[in-house]
Amino acid sequence: MKQLSSNKSFGGQQQQFEHDSTVLHCAMRFSVYLPPQATQENKVPVLYWLSGLTCNDENFVQKAGAQRMAAQLGIAIVMPDTSPRGVDTNGDIIADDEAYDLGQGAGFYVNATQAPWDKHYQMYDYIAYELPALIEANFPVTDKRSISGHSMGGHGALVIGLRNAPRFQSISAFSPIVSPLQCPWGHKALSAYLGDDQALWLKYDAVELMKKIKGDTSDLPPIKVDQGLADNFLEAQLKPHLLENSASQVHYPLEINVHSGYDHSYFFIASFIDEHLKFHAQHLMA
Amino acid sequence: MKQLSSNKSFGGQQQQFEHDSTVLHCAMRFSVYLPPQATQENKVPVLYWLSGLTCNDENFVQKAGAQRMAAQLGIAIVMPDTSPRGVDTNGDIIADDEAYDLGQGAGFYVNATQAPWDKHYQMYDYIAYELPALIEANFPVTDKRSISGHSMGGHGALVIGLRNAPRFQSISAFSPIVSPLQCPWGHKALSAYLGDDQALWLKYDAVELMKKIKGDTSDLPPIKVDQGLADNFLEAQLKPHLLENSASQVHYPLEINVHSGYDHSYFFIASFIDEHLKFHAQHLMA
Repeated sequence: MKQLSSNKSFGGQQQQFEHDSTVLHCAMRFSVYLPPQATQENKVPVLYWLSGLTCNDENFVQKAGAQRMAAQLGIAIVMPDTSPRGVDTNGDIIADDEAYDLGQGAGFYVNATQAPWDKHYQMYDYIAYELPALIEANFPVTDKRSISGHSMGGHGALVIGLRNAPRFQSISAFSPIVSPLQCPWGHKALSAYLGDDQALWLKYDAVELMKKIKGDTSDLPPIKVDQGLADNFLEAQLKPHLLENSASQVHYPLEINVHSGYDHSYFFIASFIDEHLKFHAQHLMA
Repeated sequence: MKQLSSNKSFGGQQQQFEHDSTVLHCAMRFSVYLPPQATQENKVPVLYWLSGLTCNDENFVQKAGAQRMAAQLGIAIVMPDTSPRGVDTNGDIIADDEAYDLGQGAGFYVNATQAPWDKHYQMYDYIAYELPALIEANFPVTDKRSISGHSMGGHGALVIGLRNAPRFQSISAFSPIVSPLQCPWGHKALSAYLGDDQALWLKYDAVELMKKIKGDTSDLPPIKVDQGLADNFLEAQLKPHLLENSASQVHYPLEINVHSGYDHSYFFIASFIDEHLKFHAQHLMA
């Protein structure tokens, strides 16, 4: 693991690292914010933040303004990249597509099964398992984890959080893609990464995963979603009501807040990130 | 004046505009944050933010996280570009230099007198006069103004604030160049823009301006400076003790705070911007 940068921020450290990923077969960058409370003697819980289409590990670092509240609450934030990039550990070029919504910058947090993507695009395993293990072995953090994200990253947070419920204390999302099965972004990406058999997409669809939940949901990680009503992608791609409907069927602890005038940008995230951090702190420190 | 974008942010609006500047003879972009309190019935005071070398009007917008406290306090923030750019209103190419510290992105907030810079590089007049007049004619703001900036922009804020004292309520700076006469960045830029006669540089040097102040200083705009001690430019370029010394000679109301571990980046600005906004609010709303 190689440290690329470190900047003091709100009494803590904002850092960037590169490491060789076993499941992705390439070098990956991630950013981490360590609050001032994180010391070898005092480990802190971790929020994983998954970014959206076109982003890398730096967008949230620079634009969300999350460090202030993370420092106040004593939570580390880990921000991975959104896909494998560049060349792999053998020097082979990693598959890409010219479009912004497929290939590099658009991993969709799935394990690809279709060539040419299957060789490197294993983002589900990377985020759910490899990265937390790396973080917990190398930083002063506990194994208490929460997960959040924006748009494609909101989809990732919902799917990874729901499928690994005991390992995450709480889940949140800004403007998430709640059902790749029911939107154009999802159809394009999942047909490329997983093939045309939609039965194989179900485990990467938060609405479908939610529908299958049975019995008492009170021990499952609560979900908080915020959505701007001036978001250009709301009707065609995001459709939060689909998640609300399936959560209501199974009595899942889900809270969706809508906000008039807010769009799909980081200005929306910055405006409400403090509330998400407080939500996660409540469950990480319970 | 043409609006390029508008995003809701902390209940207010983060906007970008383009207009034809009379003194710069070219189209200029600026960003403005209007807090939720700004309405036609309720005008708010304005903080002008001047960015540093290589920046444009967007760096502070995206990285400083200032909107939250500006919304809380009810202050508008105006963020101009750091130089003329591109082509002028006649279609002629605006002078530039390949270096990051001269030409476009490096206007140094002076009125250039030397060719080829004198045709467009009149950033002092643009920031001190043209822009405030434009802002006050087109936005729901009062004529109460404060000024702040970073590095080269800290120099600009100090010089423009000190030379226009009755027109600015308070002045602040992060990691400012306090004396272009006494640092390599200043020598390079001012010899190009103003020529080799250093007597003509004095009016663009905060330390020299401060030395000339006579009599009662209690009515002059107070100055707040923050400086990181892990700033790579501290010793060779910034030298805040020079300002401290000249302020102390004339009993100028100056407060300099130093911070161990902080560098020259926006992570430092973000960590302390709330305190600067509160400082300005205290004087803007007195």
